[in-house]
Order: sequence, then structure tokens, then C-alpha cells
Amino acid sequence: MIKIGIFGYGNLGRGIESAIRQNQDMELCAVFTRRDPATLKIKTEGVAVAHVSEVENYVDKIDVMILCGGSATDLPVQTPMLAKHFCVVDSFDTHANIPAHLAAVDSVAKDAGKVALISCGWDPGMFSLNRLYASAILPDGEDYTFWGKGVSQGHSDAIRRIQGVVDAKQYTIPVDAALEAVRSGAAPKLSTRQKHTRECFVVAAEGADKARIEKEIKEMPNYFADYDTTVHFISREELEREHSGIPHGGFVIRSGRTGFEGEHSHVIEYSLKLDSNPEFTASVIVAYARAVARMYREGNVGCKTVFDVPPAYLSASPRDELIKKLL
Amino acid sequence: MIKIGIFGYGNLGRGIESAIRQNQDMELCAVFTRRDPATLKIKTEGVAVAHVSEVENYVDKIDVMILCGGSATDLPVQTPMLAKHFCVVDSFDTHANIPAHLAAVDSVAKDAGKVALISCGWDPGMFSLNRLYASAILPDGEDYTFWGKGVSQGHSDAIRRIQGVVDAKQYTIPVDAALEAVRSGAAPKLSTRQKHTRECFVVAAEGADKARIEKEIKEMPNYFADYDTTVHFISREELEREHSGIPHGGFVIRSGRTGFEGEHSHVIEYSLKLDSNPEFTASVIVAYARAVARMYREGNVGCKTVFDVPPAYLSASPRDELIKKLL
Repeated sequence: MIKIGIFGYGNLGRGIESAIRQNQDMELCAVFTRRDPATLKIKTEGVAVAHVSEVENYVDKIDVMILCGGSATDLPVQTPMLAKHFCVVDSFDTHANIPAHLAAVDSVAKDAGKVALISCGWDPGMFSLNRLYASAILPDGEDYTFWGKGVSQGHSDAIRRIQGVVDAKQYTIPVDAALEAVRSGAAPKLSTRQKHTRECFVVAAEGADKARIEKEIKEMPNYFADYDTTVHFISREELEREHSGIPHGGFVIRSGRTGFEGEHSHVIEYSLKLDSNPEFTASVIVAYARAVARMYREGNVGCKTVFDVPPAYLSASPRDELIKKLL
Repeated sequence: MIKIGIFGYGNLGRGIESAIRQNQDMELCAVFTRRDPATLKIKTEGVAVAHVSEVENYVDKIDVMILCGGSATDLPVQTPMLAKHFCVVDSFDTHANIPAHLAAVDSVAKDAGKVALISCGWDPGMFSLNRLYASAILPDGEDYTFWGKGVSQGHSDAIRRIQGVVDAKQYTIPVDAALEAVRSGAAPKLSTRQKHTRECFVVAAEGADKARIEKEIKEMPNYFADYDTTVHFISREELEREHSGIPHGGFVIRSGRTGFEGEHSHVIEYSLKLDSNPEFTASVIVAYARAVARMYREGNVGCKTVFDVPPAYLSASPRDELIKKLL
């Protein structure tokens, strides 16, 4: 059995807890929280809930620690800190800072003789893998990534910070015409506006100036100004009833040419349609936690990415069974 | 530079030759043929064309030998034979016989200290990889593979063997309603007939009994009897004009559930739309030839599959660049 620790118990942490139940070769050993552990109720009976300050007491009890904090401030500190004592997996997703995070974690993990795997999930993660495979296979081609339809937490938060907004949910939606153009192999050049639209469901405070709120959303730099954005004002009840889920997904598409004259066109497409973004991310992470445990047993050390892991290491099935059933 | 040999120069061999030109870190060293080498004209100037009997003279000149023969009789003999002297890649695609082929090649490659990689292409190959990743991520789920729209060489050949048939092309076509049912996450049970239809374009001999030919096609066991099959009789000119390409493709879809009550559904879909089946297969093989060369340099031996190769090994770009650009 692979013994798993969960460090941080929000949406992702709960997703890890439920994913472990679907994998017979794993068990949850402990959940670590910054809150008072006495106030935290988890779903798995008989599992320790401990304060983050106690984590070093679990060094010999956990095979892989899964970090469930945020990329902005938690993981840059927590992943190197925990890699001193544990094999770790995180879902660090600030793309521009991945090389620096990797270097920091790699140095600690190598000194400690541990295996770490960062930036695991679906993007970065499965989408990255598909960009890599497709570009290696079709070197003469173009890559496209579309996200959605799905909830963007960052954009929803940005709307909530506007004065007079009580609550909000923002959906990122790929533009069908752009998807079709890419799938045709036409290799179009697409602007930000041509690829995605943004749809916002906003609960305004009683008496708030809705026209001003809508204008502030649509003109918000980086978040909305470069997109065609639609704003719907709805009641708090409707928001809770219709928009409480956390769906997401998207498409990674590469089109490319082969042949002595580049005369043949090919399209490789990978897509995800997810009812629950955190639960799917958790499912990817748990499969990679298995790979990390195995790489550690085989004597590997240092910080890995999804690019470094042989695919067979993700599965609980033995190699000969994978070859027989799936190859 | 990775020096490549091509063993067999049909559609796949020509695809390998053109794919090598798209990869700056590779060069074609020699093409081996069973024909009289003097009669074989290849596209790359200055490259040796040799008889298969001369292959051992090239032992020190080739890093990876790519086998382009058929799975029925060529590869079961050729891959073990050549793995005595070379690192090799083949596209052995008789699914049921892969474990035996793997064992035979593994034994030879280990004794010889070489790396072999078998069953490389898109199915087996990229489709297998996607079945593996998806099933590791969503253990509670169902797998579906659809092929087409594309030309099936085996089915076209079967039609050509019917008396009175001059030439024929057979297309395998996934049923849209089945694809949509799978994508919905409904996890339908689908019969052979519900998943694919078969469309045949047949050139009949002057005066041949078309009704009999159509009946023989539609009732042919294994090949057509379990499918809804359409037969069109066309002229030789129309066959050449409209059906000379070798397109193919297909879909690997897994739907699965997560959550404490299995309450969330997810769909992972990988699809290919290929203008040229052999050229795409060749492009996959060439990327894996790079991986084989690297695994050999690092001291690996034995027979590998796509399940065993870390994804980064397929790319000509260094790891830090992959992490920066694609992760």
C-alpha cells in the first residue's frame, strides 16, 4: 500500500481524499491543516487530522505527501519545505514561474534523497503532455490550447472585488468557429478575442449601479478587456442553484504536415470535459503519486515533471497486463 | 546526428524517409530492400540502397534500424533477427500476438545489449498511450476506441479477392450516434454493429454479377457480416480519382466518475484525423527512434513499448526548454 498525506484540505484536498478511495493500492494516512485540527471533519474514518506544524512527526508514516495549497504563495514555500522530508507532488500552475519552482524543489529533493513531482494536473499536466507528444510527432505544425467551458476561479474572484458585487461566477468559453478553423488544419492565426469569450453571472448588492459594474468588468485590463464579455445579473438564489458546480475542460490541438512536399495534413486533438475541476486534477495527481512512489523505490531522486515519467508508472496494473490489454 | 536505417521500402518506408527530413537531429544512412537494389529509386540523394542480405555490413553505421515490413510474416522474423545487431523500432500491430513478439525481441535484444521498441505507431501506439493514461486517471470508467473514417487495407484486400472484382477500397466509419452517446458520459454498451459502418467502393469486371459480389461482401464472416455495409460500384477512373488516398484516424474516449458518491462525470477524448496513415505512423516511429537512441546511450537494453518511454525522450528539444515552453 502507498501511504498518502494530504497537505491542505480545500477543494483539491477533498478531491485527493475521494480519489484515493478509487485506487486499491493506496491509503490515506493523514490530513494536515492550518486550521485547528479539532474543527476539521474529513470523510475517511480513522485517519489522523493534524496541524501543519506537526508534519515532521509523520516522516516515516507517509510515502507521498500531496500538496493542495495555492500557487501564488503556498506552494513556492511549502513544496521545497516538505521535499526535505517527504516525496511530494504539487499542482503548481503559474506557468511562467515553473522553471524557478522546479530548480528550488530539485535542489532540496536531491539533497534529501527524495523524489518530487511538480505542476501536476490537467494544465499544467495532461495538456502539457499532449503538447509535447504532438509536437514531437508533427515537428512541422502549430499548437493550440483552448480552455472551457469552465469556471475560472481567478476571474470570478476579480469580479467579486468590484464594489457593489455580492457574488459572481465567470465561465471561459472557447469560440466554436475558432475550434473548427483549427480542426480543419488551416492553421489560423487567432487573437485572444477570437479564441475565447467570457460569460459572467453576477449578484449585485441592493441598489448597486449595475451599468457601472458591467462597465468595470468589461474594461478590466488583462482579465476581460481583451475578450468579448457578457454580463448577466442574477439573484443569489439563481447563482447558487445554477452555478454552484466547478466544471472545466478544454482542448489541445496540433495540426501539422508530412510528406516530401508537406502535402498531407494531420490533426491531433486531446480534449477534456470535466464536471469537477478539482476532482479531476486530484485524480491525475493521485496517479502520479503512484509513479513517484515507484521512482523513489527504484532509487531516483530530484524534481520530476510529467515529461519525465514513463506512462506505465501511473498504473496500478503490472506491465505485462497493460501490454496485453491496452497496447 | 542519429543515423537511421530503413528496412523495407513500401508506403511506411517512404513515410520514414520523408519524416527524417523534418527532424534536424537525424539522417538517413541506408535503405534495405528485398528487391534488386539497382531497381529501387529513393528520394534522398547520396543514401545507400542495399540488399537486405548486406545488412550486417552496416552494423557500425546505423544507430536505429526502422523495420517497415508487415506484421503477418515479416516482423515476427525480422525484428528478432535485426535486434541481434541493431537498436530497432517496429510497428507490429497484431494486438493478440504482441506479448509473444515482445518476449522474442526482448530476449535477443538483452543478449545483444541493444534497445528495441515494438508496436509503435498510432494503434498500437498513441491510442494505446491514451488508453493507459485515461484508465490510470479515471479507474472507475469505461474505454472506447473508434476507428476512421479511414481506409482499411485488410478489408479492401478481402474484397479484391472476390471473383469478378477488379479493384476496391473499403472505408471504416464510426457511427456518429455512438460517438455522441460515449461523449455524453452515458457509458453505453455498444455492439460491433452500433460502433462502425463499412463503405465499399468496388470496380467490377465487365459483365460480372454485381448482385452476387455485393452479397458476398456483405455476408463475409469477420470482415463484414457483423456490420452495416454499403457497396458502391464505380468505374476504375473514379476509384483512382476519388479514392487513391490513405486517410485514417479515430477516437479513444474514456468516461469515468469521481467524487465520494461517484457524482461527477468526466470525459477524456483523444482523436486523430490523418490525411496519410503511413506518413503519420512514420512520424510517430521516428520520434520513438530518437527515444531509442537516447535510451541506448544511457545504457538501457531489452524490448520496450510506448508505455516505457518517458515523454521527454521523444523530443529533439532539451528538457529545460520543454518545461519552459510546453509545461
